[in-house]
Amino acid sequence: MIRSDVAKRKRKTAYINATFFTMDKENRVFENGMMIVQDQFITYIGSHSKEQLVDVDQVVDLAGKWVMPGLVNTHSHIVMTILRGIGDDMLLKPWLEKKIWPMETQFTTEIASVSAKLGILEMLKSGTTTFSDMFNPNGIDSDDVIHAVGETGIRGAFSYTIFSFGTEEEQKMNLREAEQFSRNYKTFADGRLTTMVAPHSAYTCTPDALTASAGIAKDNNLMVHIHVSETNDEIMDIESRYGFRPVEHLCRLGLFDQPTVMAHGVVLNDEERAMLKQYDVRVAHNPISNLKLGSGIADIVRLLNSGIKVGIATDGVSSNNNFDMFEETRTASLLQKGVYKDPTKFPAQTALALATRGGAEAIGMGKSTGSLEAAKKADFITIYPYDKEHLHPLREAYSHLLYAARGSDVADVYIDGKMVVKDRSCLTIDEEKVMSEMNRLQEKLLK
Amino acid sequence: MIRSDVAKRKRKTAYINATFFTMDKENRVFENGMMIVQDQFITYIGSHSKEQLVDVDQVVDLAGKWVMPGLVNTHSHIVMTILRGIGDDMLLKPWLEKKIWPMETQFTTEIASVSAKLGILEMLKSGTTTFSDMFNPNGIDSDDVIHAVGETGIRGAFSYTIFSFGTEEEQKMNLREAEQFSRNYKTFADGRLTTMVAPHSAYTCTPDALTASAGIAKDNNLMVHIHVSETNDEIMDIESRYGFRPVEHLCRLGLFDQPTVMAHGVVLNDEERAMLKQYDVRVAHNPISNLKLGSGIADIVRLLNSGIKVGIATDGVSSNNNFDMFEETRTASLLQKGVYKDPTKFPAQTALALATRGGAEAIGMGKSTGSLEAAKKADFITIYPYDKEHLHPLREAYSHLLYAARGSDVADVYIDGKMVVKDRSCLTIDEEKVMSEMNRLQEKLLK
Ligand SMILES: [Zn+2]
Ligand SMILES: [Zn+2]
Repeated sequence: MIRSDVAKRKRKTAYINATFFTMDKENRVFENGMMIVQDQFITYIGSHSKEQLVDVDQVVDLAGKWVMPGLVNTHSHIVMTILRGIGDDMLLKPWLEKKIWPMETQFTTEIASVSAKLGILEMLKSGTTTFSDMFNPNGIDSDDVIHAVGETGIRGAFSYTIFSFGTEEEQKMNLREAEQFSRNYKTFADGRLTTMVAPHSAYTCTPDALTASAGIAKDNNLMVHIHVSETNDEIMDIESRYGFRPVEHLCRLGLFDQPTVMAHGVVLNDEERAMLKQYDVRVAHNPISNLKLGSGIADIVRLLNSGIKVGIATDGVSSNNNFDMFEETRTASLLQKGVYKDPTKFPAQTALALATRGGAEAIGMGKSTGSLEAAKKADFITIYPYDKEHLHPLREAYSHLLYAARGSDVADVYIDGKMVVKDRSCLTIDEEKVMSEMNRLQEKLLK
Repeated sequence: MIRSDVAKRKRKTAYINATFFTMDKENRVFENGMMIVQDQFITYIGSHSKEQLVDVDQVVDLAGKWVMPGLVNTHSHIVMTILRGIGDDMLLKPWLEKKIWPMETQFTTEIASVSAKLGILEMLKSGTTTFSDMFNPNGIDSDDVIHAVGETGIRGAFSYTIFSFGTEEEQKMNLREAEQFSRNYKTFADGRLTTMVAPHSAYTCTPDALTASAGIAKDNNLMVHIHVSETNDEIMDIESRYGFRPVEHLCRLGLFDQPTVMAHGVVLNDEERAMLKQYDVRVAHNPISNLKLGSGIADIVRLLNSGIKVGIATDGVSSNNNFDMFEETRTASLLQKGVYKDPTKFPAQTALALATRGGAEAIGMGKSTGSLEAAKKADFITIYPYDKEHLHPLREAYSHLLYAARGSDVADVYIDGKMVVKDRSCLTIDEEKVMSEMNRLQEKLLK
């Protein structure tokens, strides 16, 4: 009888003795705190409590560690990880047209799966537990690839890109397959994975494809993920083709009728910000990619002041070239201070909130992840600072998380209450195999 | 007889099987290359050569490793390492006047020595082998501190700051002691350490102190190290006090008659750039500190086009907040691309050259360090990329060194041919002791 009770009751684990940075709305920090995880959920977070310990099945001592929510990367392209370091220091258009897209046409399912795993391996080990990705389905078996993504244990949205390339028939097929994929995987991998409708951009999709995308999103109650207002050239291009700047163009086509995440938003005016606010369009801010490709610096202070939801993102590693969200978030903060010539702008609290809770809210996952709060999923990371010279003196830990830490400081990573990285080793991915296969596949691709 | 021959002859070591990124003027890279080090010097670098191996005493197999020159940090304040994370997100003036300077007045020799060691520990472990530092001598025994610096094995210039604070007598004493210190340690620690004459800035030094500094530099044939043109406020302040902008003010006082390194150079006009070029004044570029303090973004593309020598630098960790020169150099490159809206600006070759050879040249050490070339000192670092997901695929290694690597990727560090970091453990500093002492001293200081 007792046995069956225990079997029915969900397993309870207490994590103790750590400093917990909750990143909740009050930005609470519990030194020598405690977190109880039952099954996938946080059921308690706060001070150490003997009462809470009574019916716990397992106690994990995190003595000396810092614990924070896993980071949320709101825009990436993991299938392109094979292209890291290829075509640096080039202009955006030739970079896409001469380097990236021609290589992508030669992608295979194997390349896509191994690239995805390598990208996720890097994300997990550097503290990212949730991501929102757009992949180019060209030539690959998307079902296979999302299964590979599912096996890694990561949370996120993996979205099939819609492009208006090729013949009319090919374009129709792309839309059909995008809808099918989005529907099939709307809830996948124990609910960790979902999809969005992802037209690549206003400059690579016809108005018809964008209208169709809006329809798919509405019919299936999915979010939209799209690149918008990345460069001045894009603004001029869309304006000359359609008579409106990208934001208004997309809005008129009904794309913003479903909650939308737009990557970039580097070139925006007041009118556009008002429109984004009105339609609750969220911005995935990719500061390093925007610098590296010469797009410019997005005005995040103004976006936040306009009440627009903002998340931090890395973009793909061919324009970054890593997935380190600690560095990305620091860069985001530093840039606003530098551009505004005001060091009080974008303080540590704001930056770390956007990298966690804010990012989760931007991609529609704010109810389940992004902060350490009861009823949220247990997605968290640990850092052991005692042997890290760059995190000393230890006292200003909150500051160090933004201004001094790097992805390699992350020790353990948990998603859905399950450990996926243990003391810098990934438990869900065969690291050596993925890295050596990636080298082999790249050699082959470049031949 | 043979024995005494061997004893007299300097020990020769061959480093083999690595990829050597020389960072020399031709930017040569030797895959499966070889480097011979005799005593402190590189005597051969190039392809694998059996002839070179004939009279070698020791062969070190660096199979699979990347080898590059140690990085050169051209402006830092290691004695302030205790202040990491204190006073973030504040305006420059209150930050200095309310946080930094009041704390500095309470510094002790112990604080200074432990701070210096912690800072150097971080520098060494993240691949910096040479630094140029300005320290505030207030209340500390500078002889003790430079001895502590010497023991770490690092190369560089450690410079006693001149301030026009206090009574006339105190100011005179400061100048006298600065001269004595600079002279005493002009060649120190087996020639690894030297000094510069370091008036803090035009806004903290009277014209008399600056003229005296110029005199000390000339009399002792020393370089000058000073903060110049960091903010708009500084320009306005100096112009209103002395009738000239800082560059012209300092030039008129004769400060540039000796080779000078100026930290920052954020706010400069064409006339000033011409003046800097004419007097061979070098710029230590601190991109992260300049962002974090809201100073702005220095125009490095224009400085380089004007023929001015530029090095990369971190500044102190209270305005950074780490000493990771990989991140700093990447940020330098990204910023110019972003500000110029041109991804071809400041490519990997330029950035990595400034972080190594260019930095060494800027601080007057170009003959001995900054690249892997015969006759230079053997200051080099190794990275083992095979177990690092963010350096995969491996092929574009040169790109990865700038765009993907981080300080924690560094495995081994050699200075003067001597190993100072072995597989991420520092051989010259008691890491645990320095970190725990730093915590203890900070607690005491903050009481
Ligand atoms: Zn993108
Ligand atoms: Zn400084």
